[in-house]
Amino acid sequence: MRHASIPLQNAMRDIAAEIDRQFDQLLPIPADPRAGLYQAMRHAAIGGGKRLRPLLVFATAKLFGVDRECIARVATAIECIHVYSLVHDDLPAMDDDDMRRGKPTVHKAFDEATAILAGDCLHALAFELLADERTHGDPFVRVELVQCIANAAGPAGMGGGQMMDLEAEKTSFDLPTVTRLQAMKTGALIACSVEAGAILGRLPIEGRTGLRGYARDVGLAFQIADDLLDVEGDEEAVGKALRKDGSAGKDTFVSLLGVERAREQARILVEQAIDHLHAYGNEADLLRDIARFTLERDR
Amino acid sequence: MRHASIPLQNAMRDIAAEIDRQFDQLLPIPADPRAGLYQAMRHAAIGGGKRLRPLLVFATAKLFGVDRECIARVATAIECIHVYSLVHDDLPAMDDDDMRRGKPTVHKAFDEATAILAGDCLHALAFELLADERTHGDPFVRVELVQCIANAAGPAGMGGGQMMDLEAEKTSFDLPTVTRLQAMKTGALIACSVEAGAILGRLPIEGRTGLRGYARDVGLAFQIADDLLDVEGDEEAVGKALRKDGSAGKDTFVSLLGVERAREQARILVEQAIDHLHAYGNEADLLRDIARFTLERDR
Repeated sequence: MRHASIPLQNAMRDIAAEIDRQFDQLLPIPADPRAGLYQAMRHAAIGGGKRLRPLLVFATAKLFGVDRECIARVATAIECIHVYSLVHDDLPAMDDDDMRRGKPTVHKAFDEATAILAGDCLHALAFELLADERTHGDPFVRVELVQCIANAAGPAGMGGGQMMDLEAEKTSFDLPTVTRLQAMKTGALIACSVEAGAILGRLPIEGRTGLRGYARDVGLAFQIADDLLDVEGDEEAVGKALRKDGSAGKDTFVSLLGVERAREQARILVEQAIDHLHAYGNEADLLRDIARFTLERDR
Repeated sequence: MRHASIPLQNAMRDIAAEIDRQFDQLLPIPADPRAGLYQAMRHAAIGGGKRLRPLLVFATAKLFGVDRECIARVATAIECIHVYSLVHDDLPAMDDDDMRRGKPTVHKAFDEATAILAGDCLHALAFELLADERTHGDPFVRVELVQCIANAAGPAGMGGGQMMDLEAEKTSFDLPTVTRLQAMKTGALIACSVEAGAILGRLPIEGRTGLRGYARDVGLAFQIADDLLDVEGDEEAVGKALRKDGSAGKDTFVSLLGVERAREQARILVEQAIDHLHAYGNEADLLRDIARFTLERDR
């Protein structure tokens, strides 16, 4: 966080605390044989991560004066999807990672079966939350959120991108294919976080072009920064194993463009992202700060 | 199917064909690196199973004259959830099964990573389908379906029941605990199939008592029959490995009650289920036939 602006630092701190509070309330450990499942879900969900997606929901919905509790619940639902995908991606059959967010991964702290189920339950919990009338009084808003998030999670979004990522170990991909892979694997849920803010703000679809352009560019810049971190980052600061893409022979933005051109590309994308916000005044400064931060982060 | 009534046999055949048709349309294999993911989803979803849950959606919604395409899409969404749970349950870290519905399980026909992702994508697809306006014109109906199905899939439903089932290998459970486990693990999604039919039929909550009682009793009878099949069934007819509960030391209705009392209990539940339908005339005969069939099935 050292390079984040003061308002962004404050927002990150507040939102991280809010998301933890939401998960803590949603996941009380039951006094029955499901206790381990809930403990695993809490281990995965509470206390960690940049909470980038909740931050984007918050920063976008704030443009339209949306109720804070409502934003928090939708942001938590999207974080459920993100966290479940991390739990499953870390499994031995997938990326086989032992550390995540500076803690043992769920299948290490518990076991594989519990990790699979904890991921599955976080996945379902996202939609329970979104469909709940306490999240938003208007069923049309709730169902639009479900549609947006289910699309982003499914085979045309994150799930499909993850499959392409597995294939990337076996074949070489060119830049357009890597771009498409990343647009699906991480871009879809990032875009959906901004879209969720717009849905909560009841922004009509024809008014969303700028925000969608912003989200697409931030998502890609974020992924390039992630590839750069994988090559240049400090494992302890990042909280997970690095330099795995290179040893797996995966094509990334950095392997295809080189460090310097990748960094330049990310810079251009961040500028573009900010340009997309031209219709907004300083109420969009948090979104601008988030875009800049994608380049500066050290974890 | 040999013991099913003729109308039930016809309904089962029609619905099986309809669900296959829906999955075939939903899952065209893309000409990109996600092809294997879609093939795995198709392998899991198409051509197999009793389609009990779709049958319950259909038989319930039919009471209220709901449009057939609408029923088929909701039934397919619920079957997505059921199929994803089978794919994940079959994984080596879970029940470690090689055969399902007479075919190799997904992780055997493909690999573990693909099986995890195919399950995850079927899970998301269920909610994509439910939220889609082509499924039902009224957003309130769609969001009520999402809520019902997400609850049934999550930690208070199927996911929680599956966790209890894993614990059942390590400790002994008494009859109330096994009943609760099964009410969550298989009962929740069966109940939700009937509930979805009632939601589509716009039956007010206060009018659902009879159908809910029916669904609860059928779900439990179905599970007792499943436990009996596990002890007495023919592996080839059932299409999967049997007698695993006993060798894993799991308590089941049959281990706790014995074969005779378990069968008697299932019979009583089926009678009760049918009694719950007393307010309906012969338009509910298909639901009655389904209840009777839970006892008679050989797979």
